Amino acid sequence: MEAVKARVYVSFKPTVLDPQGQTIQRALHGLGHPSVSGVRQGKFFEIELKAADRDDAARELDQIAREVLTNPVIEDYRVEFLAT
Amino acid sequence: MEAVKARVYVSFKPTVLDPQGQTIQRALHGLGHPSVSGVRQGKFFEIELKAADRDDAARELDQIAREVLTNPVIEDYRVEFLAT
Repeated sequence: MEAVKARVYVSFKPTVLDPQGQTIQRALHGLGHPSVSGVRQGKFFEIELKAADRDDAARELDQIAREVLTNPVIEDYRVEFLAT
Repeated sequence: MEAVKARVYVSFKPTVLDPQGQTIQRALHGLGHPSVSGVRQGKFFEIELKAADRDDAARELDQIAREVLTNPVIEDYRVEFLAT
């Protein structure tokens, strides 16, 4: 068994409105950053798990991201392995 | 003026407890992923801005991350430029 560390990034699909990002953009304009032309917010999960090998870990992380961490109707995800 | 795209990643400092991550970890155990040994959650902001050059953009993004997007008592941040 191998200890694996990875990040799953979850963000809204490009076609989905992000009101929280828009609010942050307006706040930044009011705080002296008028050059900011767009803000979109997302979240990420840093996950440690034990797996037989890298492929096994990739399969499990993909399943976790797809079935638990992401709402597939409005969100996309991306898995990135971290150096261990 | 140059259009720049960057991501600011905000996460809890390693010494700060992350109850939301712990809840996700327990949920994953209950959903058939007992191999997951740790989960920590963070957020990121995808920011588009106009700047004179890359250095200028880096300065402004650092200020935005430090003063607006991060609570320096409990959070760390990291700025990453995206290819444009």
